[in-house]
Amino acid sequence: MPVFLDATASDFESSFQTLLTAKREDSPDVDEAVTAIIADVRARGDSAVIDLTQKYDRLTLTPSTLQVSDAEITEAVAAIPQAEVEALKLAADRITAYHARQQPEDAHWTDQSGATLGWRWTPVAAAGLYVPGGLASYPSSVLMNAIPAKVAGVPRLAMVVPAPDGVLNPLVLAAARLAGVDEIYRIGGAQAIAALAYGTETIAPVDKITGPGNAYVAAAKRRVFGKVGIDMIAGPSEILVIADGDNDPDWIALDLLSQAEHDESAQSILITTDPAFGRAVADAVDARLQTLERRAIAGASWRDFGAIITVADLAQAAALSNRIAPEHLELCVADPEALSAQITHAGAIFLGQWTPEAIGDYVGGPNHVLPTARSARFSSGLSVLDFLKRTTLARMTPGALRSIGPAAETLARTESLEAHGLSVTARLKKLND
Amino acid sequence: MPVFLDATASDFESSFQTLLTAKREDSPDVDEAVTAIIADVRARGDSAVIDLTQKYDRLTLTPSTLQVSDAEITEAVAAIPQAEVEALKLAADRITAYHARQQPEDAHWTDQSGATLGWRWTPVAAAGLYVPGGLASYPSSVLMNAIPAKVAGVPRLAMVVPAPDGVLNPLVLAAARLAGVDEIYRIGGAQAIAALAYGTETIAPVDKITGPGNAYVAAAKRRVFGKVGIDMIAGPSEILVIADGDNDPDWIALDLLSQAEHDESAQSILITTDPAFGRAVADAVDARLQTLERRAIAGASWRDFGAIITVADLAQAAALSNRIAPEHLELCVADPEALSAQITHAGAIFLGQWTPEAIGDYVGGPNHVLPTARSARFSSGLSVLDFLKRTTLARMTPGALRSIGPAAETLARTESLEAHGLSVTARLKKLND
Repeated sequence: MPVFLDATASDFESSFQTLLTAKREDSPDVDEAVTAIIADVRARGDSAVIDLTQKYDRLTLTPSTLQVSDAEITEAVAAIPQAEVEALKLAADRITAYHARQQPEDAHWTDQSGATLGWRWTPVAAAGLYVPGGLASYPSSVLMNAIPAKVAGVPRLAMVVPAPDGVLNPLVLAAARLAGVDEIYRIGGAQAIAALAYGTETIAPVDKITGPGNAYVAAAKRRVFGKVGIDMIAGPSEILVIADGDNDPDWIALDLLSQAEHDESAQSILITTDPAFGRAVADAVDARLQTLERRAIAGASWRDFGAIITVADLAQAAALSNRIAPEHLELCVADPEALSAQITHAGAIFLGQWTPEAIGDYVGGPNHVLPTARSARFSSGLSVLDFLKRTTLARMTPGALRSIGPAAETLARTESLEAHGLSVTARLKKLND
Repeated sequence: MPVFLDATASDFESSFQTLLTAKREDSPDVDEAVTAIIADVRARGDSAVIDLTQKYDRLTLTPSTLQVSDAEITEAVAAIPQAEVEALKLAADRITAYHARQQPEDAHWTDQSGATLGWRWTPVAAAGLYVPGGLASYPSSVLMNAIPAKVAGVPRLAMVVPAPDGVLNPLVLAAARLAGVDEIYRIGGAQAIAALAYGTETIAPVDKITGPGNAYVAAAKRRVFGKVGIDMIAGPSEILVIADGDNDPDWIALDLLSQAEHDESAQSILITTDPAFGRAVADAVDARLQTLERRAIAGASWRDFGAIITVADLAQAAALSNRIAPEHLELCVADPEALSAQITHAGAIFLGQWTPEAIGDYVGGPNHVLPTARSARFSSGLSVLDFLKRTTLARMTPGALRSIGPAAETLARTESLEAHGLSVTARLKKLND
């Protein structure tokens, strides 16, 4: 049974707080193990990676079989049904079109002092993409991570994906080829993150690492942050649906379950202005849970973390949503644009009843790598910007230096940074000579 | 004596590698202490912050004196010489004008399928700014951190600055007021980061923390990352000057020294096409080191980490610069724009001999919070974007869902995510009824 809350009740605030702060994931403290693995890979390179892969993935590799060969990829891809290849292509095309619009503009201008200012964007030279193995080895995630990097112009994209007992998902390989991944290594865990960050004899180091992973991968990314750039540390997925009474309860139930089926730690919340509709959705969820393939996972998530909140009006719904700062937000109401304007924190918004969140997972175009665990308060989904960096530019003329240099001299003096001031003074002196 | 290297010599590569990988900072491992401090602040709130401030800053506070009062700020600001206030204002105006251009555009469009797509930028609700105390308590850094946040539209900006023995820098308070900081707390260290991230009875939590600090502050920021957003973990500052022989050696010497005087761990490197000029700069540095106020610090930095590299041509200079990925890069050559076009990784570029790096520290306009320690390979200076987050938007029509929904169903099936597929199928079924 999910939690039923009434936002107009007097005890709502404390129940809502409990919901907001519920710890959904037991993150084992793996820091010590990860620190040792990273040190081992730094010290022994390929040998360490090979030993750790033997240990964790029961797979015997050599330096020459670390990388998945072109022939292997071609063979795997050839066996994929055409309909699946076509669906991947449609997704890739739409994701590419959306992300191409994110490419930011360079800027240059000359101001009143005569100074020319601006900035310039350039791609990172090499990016590493972590793809989980096993159950959560999703081809769609390969597209969502690799395409923004390629759109940004990253010249080298290296992917790592563990192959437990030697097994790789052919669709993951197909998605990688489609998205323009340059190298694929069949390794995973903290050892793969260490190899990407520091390099080995066989694997050249990268500058930025993105992609989701388990507790070891997350701890390793946190550890190598600074040596390389990383994307966010992803937590379990969540969805918030705001719906009025004018919806099909079964559709909303399926939308809630499409998050719940990801993970027992996932969270699905419905906020509705119509208590009867809320009960109808709860019934529809129960009905679907009778037959859903992943009913064990989805049922546990819904039971432990699901919630149905009734509110007085949509303004109250928006206010609660902003406190939750959901990863995914569906607005199934008569005027979703108007409600959307009241939303200040959310990873992705899906407007109207014809936009199930699952569309965004695959073919909508926007990225499905989104901020979890309330981090939409301060961060954004993956984008082209994650693979670019900005260099600022400034050029003074003698006139500009004469105009603004004295202020710099003054400020340098207040900060007791004499050489800073003198570097301006020496030039101004020449101008006045 | 700095290192002298000749890029055309046969043993250059190994010497350059040594220079690239030199460890300039002994980061003490303070993780354990910081973890304890954060836990203490989370458990005891104000009381913990007050106790730790007593212990580390020898300052006795109460909940009501944690915050610097308006009257205190007014009094401190009133005593500042007018020229210094004017210089701060000029700096603030120029930094504001530069950063205002960084505000990104929202986007909305409708594609061929009939889907409406786009994104929207919104500011974080509250940002926390860490300002170091003591020697490195720089008013210019207050402007550089606070102004981008205010330009982004952050409604609440809380600043923390330690006041060892009760002492605060009046110019830091003036800069905070000028930049629109809303609250100032006289606390520092890991306890201040913990208070900003988790909140106390007196200090409301923020969503994003920026600003430089010592090893404790850096470790605390790394630790709270995820609960809140953080900017980069800053290391010691560095400058690379690429100069041809047609420069005043004293100007270049001062530019090199303006980094070296920051910190004994700072690094200043000159790359020149003219060996004789390189020697002249070395002599000029030595001459300036006779009298420079901070000659002990600057001299140690130059002795331990300074380098002068002679190259065959500017193309070689650019290639070496890209491997260094410098925080600050001065291009003192005849055609700095042409050389700039060859630079792929740098935090900030200063073009031409009339643009000493110190201009960028204060009044140029671009931000002086820049990626250190080669992290310009994957990250950028502080900007308005650091205080914004992007929400992606998608709205399907029945026609759009009919067009792209089947591909989502196919991909959901390949990923064994049945509810994802069913959420599309149920809607398509309604359309086909």
